[in-house]
Amino acid sequence: MSDEYKLWEKKQQDKGVNIGWVKERLKSFKVETPSWGYGDSGTRFKTFKQVGVPRNLFEKLEDAAQVNKYTGMCPTVAIHIPWDKVDDYGKVKEYAAQLGLKIGAVNPNLFQDDDYKFGSLTNVKPDIRRKATEHMLECIDIAKEVDSNIISLWLADGTNYPGQGDFRMRKHYLEQCLKEVYDALGDNMRLLIEYKCFEPAFYHTDIADWGMSYTFSSKLGPKAQVLVDLGHHLQGTNVEHIVAFLLDEGKIGGFHFNNRKYADDDLIVGSINPYELFLIFNELITASLDESTAQTAANIAYMIDQSHCIEPKIPAMIRSVLNIQTAYAKALLVNRNELKQAQEADDVMAAEAIVREAFETDVQPLLEAVREEMGLQPDPMATYIKSGYGEKILSRGIGGKGWE
Amino acid sequence: MSDEYKLWEKKQQDKGVNIGWVKERLKSFKVETPSWGYGDSGTRFKTFKQVGVPRNLFEKLEDAAQVNKYTGMCPTVAIHIPWDKVDDYGKVKEYAAQLGLKIGAVNPNLFQDDDYKFGSLTNVKPDIRRKATEHMLECIDIAKEVDSNIISLWLADGTNYPGQGDFRMRKHYLEQCLKEVYDALGDNMRLLIEYKCFEPAFYHTDIADWGMSYTFSSKLGPKAQVLVDLGHHLQGTNVEHIVAFLLDEGKIGGFHFNNRKYADDDLIVGSINPYELFLIFNELITASLDESTAQTAANIAYMIDQSHCIEPKIPAMIRSVLNIQTAYAKALLVNRNELKQAQEADDVMAAEAIVREAFETDVQPLLEAVREEMGLQPDPMATYIKSGYGEKILSRGIGGKGWE
Amino acid sequence: MSDEYKLWEKKQQDKGVNIGWVKERLKSFKVETPSWGYGDSGTRFKTFKQVGVPRNLFEKLEDAAQVNKYTGMCPTVAIHIPWDKVDDYGKVKEYAAQLGLKIGAVNPNLFQDDDYKFGSLTNVKPDIRRKATEHMLECIDIAKEVDSNIISLWLADGTNYPGQGDFRMRKHYLEQCLKEVYDALGDNMRLLIEYKCFEPAFYHTDIADWGMSYTFSSKLGPKAQVLVDLGHHLQGTNVEHIVAFLLDEGKIGGFHFNNRKYADDDLIVGSINPYELFLIFNELITASLDESTAQTAANIAYMIDQSHCIEPKIPAMIRSVLNIQTAYAKALLVNRNELKQAQEADDVMAAEAIVREAFETDVQPLLEAVREEMGLQPDPMATYIKSGYGEKILSRGIGGKGWE
Amino acid sequence: MSDEYKLWEKKQQDKGVNIGWVKERLKSFKVETPSWGYGDSGTRFKTFKQVGVPRNLFEKLEDAAQVNKYTGMCPTVAIHIPWDKVDDYGKVKEYAAQLGLKIGAVNPNLFQDDDYKFGSLTNVKPDIRRKATEHMLECIDIAKEVDSNIISLWLADGTNYPGQGDFRMRKHYLEQCLKEVYDALGDNMRLLIEYKCFEPAFYHTDIADWGMSYTFSSKLGPKAQVLVDLGHHLQGTNVEHIVAFLLDEGKIGGFHFNNRKYADDDLIVGSINPYELFLIFNELITASLDESTAQTAANIAYMIDQSHCIEPKIPAMIRSVLNIQTAYAKALLVNRNELKQAQEADDVMAAEAIVREAFETDVQPLLEAVREEMGLQPDPMATYIKSGYGEKILSRGIGGKGWE
Repeated sequence: MSDEYKLWEKKQQDKGVNIGWVKERLKSFKVETPSWGYGDSGTRFKTFKQVGVPRNLFEKLEDAAQVNKYTGMCPTVAIHIPWDKVDDYGKVKEYAAQLGLKIGAVNPNLFQDDDYKFGSLTNVKPDIRRKATEHMLECIDIAKEVDSNIISLWLADGTNYPGQGDFRMRKHYLEQCLKEVYDALGDNMRLLIEYKCFEPAFYHTDIADWGMSYTFSSKLGPKAQVLVDLGHHLQGTNVEHIVAFLLDEGKIGGFHFNNRKYADDDLIVGSINPYELFLIFNELITASLDESTAQTAANIAYMIDQSHCIEPKIPAMIRSVLNIQTAYAKALLVNRNELKQAQEADDVMAAEAIVREAFETDVQPLLEAVREEMGLQPDPMATYIKSGYGEKILSRGIGGKGWE
Repeated sequence: MSDEYKLWEKKQQDKGVNIGWVKERLKSFKVETPSWGYGDSGTRFKTFKQVGVPRNLFEKLEDAAQVNKYTGMCPTVAIHIPWDKVDDYGKVKEYAAQLGLKIGAVNPNLFQDDDYKFGSLTNVKPDIRRKATEHMLECIDIAKEVDSNIISLWLADGTNYPGQGDFRMRKHYLEQCLKEVYDALGDNMRLLIEYKCFEPAFYHTDIADWGMSYTFSSKLGPKAQVLVDLGHHLQGTNVEHIVAFLLDEGKIGGFHFNNRKYADDDLIVGSINPYELFLIFNELITASLDESTAQTAANIAYMIDQSHCIEPKIPAMIRSVLNIQTAYAKALLVNRNELKQAQEADDVMAAEAIVREAFETDVQPLLEAVREEMGLQPDPMATYIKSGYGEKILSRGIGGKGWE
Repeated sequence: MSDEYKLWEKKQQDKGVNIGWVKERLKSFKVETPSWGYGDSGTRFKTFKQVGVPRNLFEKLEDAAQVNKYTGMCPTVAIHIPWDKVDDYGKVKEYAAQLGLKIGAVNPNLFQDDDYKFGSLTNVKPDIRRKATEHMLECIDIAKEVDSNIISLWLADGTNYPGQGDFRMRKHYLEQCLKEVYDALGDNMRLLIEYKCFEPAFYHTDIADWGMSYTFSSKLGPKAQVLVDLGHHLQGTNVEHIVAFLLDEGKIGGFHFNNRKYADDDLIVGSINPYELFLIFNELITASLDESTAQTAANIAYMIDQSHCIEPKIPAMIRSVLNIQTAYAKALLVNRNELKQAQEADDVMAAEAIVREAFETDVQPLLEAVREEMGLQPDPMATYIKSGYGEKILSRGIGGKGWE
Repeated sequence: MSDEYKLWEKKQQDKGVNIGWVKERLKSFKVETPSWGYGDSGTRFKTFKQVGVPRNLFEKLEDAAQVNKYTGMCPTVAIHIPWDKVDDYGKVKEYAAQLGLKIGAVNPNLFQDDDYKFGSLTNVKPDIRRKATEHMLECIDIAKEVDSNIISLWLADGTNYPGQGDFRMRKHYLEQCLKEVYDALGDNMRLLIEYKCFEPAFYHTDIADWGMSYTFSSKLGPKAQVLVDLGHHLQGTNVEHIVAFLLDEGKIGGFHFNNRKYADDDLIVGSINPYELFLIFNELITASLDESTAQTAANIAYMIDQSHCIEPKIPAMIRSVLNIQTAYAKALLVNRNELKQAQEADDVMAAEAIVREAFETDVQPLLEAVREEMGLQPDPMATYIKSGYGEKILSRGIGGKGWE
């Protein structure tokens, strides 16, 4: 134990922090990385191809295993169908297990087939809705094969012009399709419904905000919940408030982490507005300590969803995981007893200070200590870079898998 | 019937418009004006006082009667308690009736008492929640006295800083209070719950978006519905989509009309983005023609809520009413059969054109004809200005009632 | 002359409109269409390929000629290098002339070469800046060959993360490169400098707003001016104010027309917020009538820049041109004498009404009359569709040129 | 020197930080507090009056002296005319001196007089422009009397509706007035021109963005510079980029610090988005180290401009000052040599990490050490609260000066 850590621990204990509990929470905290985050992605103007990008799902899993190896907190990997489609999912499960991994959420793709030009589950043509629904059912089957219990639905459907579509008719189509999908879920499976204000649809999006996801989820039943992607809100949205609201309603099921300054920029989580990320975790941790919300909080799937356009993929993923861990650690340090007292006394200055000061705390000594106790190196990024893995995969060449 | 109108009618009939139906809808369309819209209002920097502003509720009703007299479509007036508090509401009802008016929605005020500095229905102190709830109950009593069946709740509660309040605890307080209020509603009464993204609270607002209003309304029951204020959304929100969604859920109960370019600017409705206003009415009219949504659409309370900071109050109100009528008339002209066909054929260009061209139609000939059939002058604004009423009220002097 | 038009004309003349002048302005008004607007484009998620899309610049010119044929107002076509690169620009000029067209603005591409991953004119590496500058110089040479006198520079350069780039160093690089480019402009040539708040860069964009374009243009000299793309502003921006400001400074050189509800959605101009488009033209027309701004206004290049992701390309372009013509026509009807009087009397209601009522006027009778006087069919869209051209080009097959 | 600080210093030195230089910069860093920040302020809905608020300028200075006493970095106080108007400014200067203070920027008020309903310096009526100009000249005289060399101009002028005003005519009026004001500035005086996107004007604001402030400043001459208020931007604006751009142009003269989540919320600086504040200081410090920008950076006036609606005034001001100091200290820790190397190598991940890690550093040990070396208590907030001053001023009663 370093002198620095000892001093740090003493200081926190003096502030009333239960260090044992904090460490325990940190050790059991897991974040899922996405298979597509290891591949090439870009903007509508250009995808810059990188050397060393994985050429198939197996290589993506290898890269994901690196992130898990050095951070110790990413044992599951989300997959995207058909980008990650294979003939034999048994082999995927097996290879993942060899790498110390499991398959996480299964993500259907309802936006890239030519048939979906005017919508998938909301398409005015019954056969296209049928096709889209079948794809959802296929994803449920795949999830069962790979022992996954989460289907993450991002529905890109929407319209570009006033008049183009009938909002309510499309809503009815969507509800019908979702009902069929919901009924096909296995016993322990959940359908997480994402929302997004715009892009690729530029006038209206059929599931545009959390209220729509919530309404659909509520009508479907307890296995359906809302998925919050941090980049899918209009400017100015108080995301932590939405998270708290959904926690209270028992209807938040997962996160897609990333960051943005403008629209759905899909940047490294915590890189643009780290305080917002911290405040979201503050709500999650508080809810995990309240009886009425503890179970909902415990079941939340923490997943990363980013597009690394100019960054090297594996370091970008490690950085994302570490930023999440940092925000989570800081949020664990909030003295909730004192905060409650300040809130009950309407002491705005004190309440604000308790939250902000936890954010301002340097948690590096803590995280290094926790990593050592977990048998990890204290600096995951440096350790990865020194490992030579980044150079090794260059032999894969250019033109690995992107969003295809 | 003017030559211009004859030509106009012929052209519309050739396009398949049922002019008789359009006129009937226009003649039965009503908009409520707010008592406070006749008084002084301003920004945090300055309220510019105008000469002739009404000094009490009775004078506000006199002004509102002028708007109704010339537009023929504003027979009800919303009141705001305590701004419009009087000893004897029987007299108010009687005076309104003499003026050809009725009292419309009753609006509680939960933001101006010193006790509400840190919240009203969400205040951490039980006695302040009690006081706020009692005020709501008082408003229900007043509503019963004046034969009103709508309580419009705009809850300004929120916080300015992270940590200041406990989101979920405040939500619980709010739900308890709303339950008590809901249970006190009379048989035909409705509680309309407004939402707002920010202001006066600058970090979080307890009812921040339609999803929160919807959740509260749904849990309360059928007498609770969402109230949509056009200025209470984040930039980029597709309001017509939200309206359609709520119509489909049977949970939209009313509107607060106004317009804005930035935040909740409370400008004259239709003055900044007239196409948006038209698109909202397009959804409302379509829903009124569908069996599943007709009843919800029929019960919507159309109300104006504006702050006329630099405009003369009565002309600003007449303009607002006329802009609403114009948007409504244009939306009635949409050929919904052709639109449906274009939508079903995925003919984006045709569908867009049908909607846009209805908007581009000049409805002045129609509105003049309708007014004449209603026994009104064709140009309400010019007729009002010529009437001399604006000069007559100057004798009221300066310093009439504002938001107080 | 139809009865409808006669009535329309009479009514406008009674309002003080000089119809002869309005028609003259409409007949001489020109809009440039972009070669790339006839090709496939999409979002980062998917480009839906259309059958019949042109396979080379010559076919793009053929399509553009159709738009000009039916609208009578699009005799020039902007090109994009290298998307439209050919061996012999003499042939391009010649073929365009046969089609009744000329080549308009030349648009360099500084965002699609792998070398530009971290910037082009702002790249930290001198050889890449050299390459980008040479490309600009090449575009000037091409412009000279095709008798174009406008270079439109959209610089996509920027960074995705805090710290990634040195803002001021990049600014210096940019100024050096632009100086060299500026000095190479021919006598009658202009460099129009576009700005954009974000995308594809997600943290900072080197030319982020009009103020930056203006600063660079001012320092370069009179041949450099600002190019305003309607979709490149943050939400809430008052674009017409910026246009008026730049007109007054003599520093606006052109427009890229399109529309958006959220970000740079590149939708059909006038389809989302037609009032804004009208208000912009209102400023342009007023400036054209003032001695101090007339010359600047006269030299503005009106250009369309859109991405037709789901629309058929030629109809989408015709619609765009017609929407611009409609907005322009309405703005010509503003009674500027009365407006000036109302403004000088601080009569807010009257001033607003003069502007709004011009917008609410149906200009279809006028536009049909003008088209007939120009020897065109009154309904360009219907005439094009009936022409069979859309079917004829289907033989080109799928997979024509997109953004490549 | 505490063990904690010793460890902290060692760690920073190992990272290449020059601690002596950092401390020197911190000791010489000054922030100006505003007289009006000690008074009552509110929203358009309500101003909650606080007990103990100063009743005149002299009491405001007493409160400001408290902030300076405990933070050691606020020796100047901005004043607002006419809110702080007195008969004898000699007495003000003298009393300030007794309190260890000087008067800082003089802020004219061009928005609260009834004459300014339709504009002040841009008013269509010459006599009102004259009055407004005279007020500016009066402020220059007052500045001379109190030995201040900064006039901060926030111009609230604008319009609420399309058509209401003539953008270019108003621009001309403004330029004429500013010219006269500029010419009256004393030798060492500067005119800092603020910009704001909206409020209180809701359609257009005459000085709407930095580009307009920059244009006016540039045309006036070297004594005119841009003033950046952190809350006066549209959502999504990259403020640090604007700051860097203006530094490079030598045209930034000062800041109005505050924070916001939505519009111009005027919250405690650093309370909503602390990373943005840090990134702004990062630009300022880098510019202070470059020869070409050092002088501009050295002359920047750091000023707070906030509205404490629900917070106790003096603690809110201390918190603001400390948040600024914290951000400044963190920005001093950025290793600029390493950053430059990473930028030149296009190493996005390394460059981003250098900046972010400086932000994540806990600077509390450093700030405590610096305070002790300055003869201050290590915890200014706690020391102030313990001092009893907050209780002492309660005898002033309620109803002290607000924005009046």
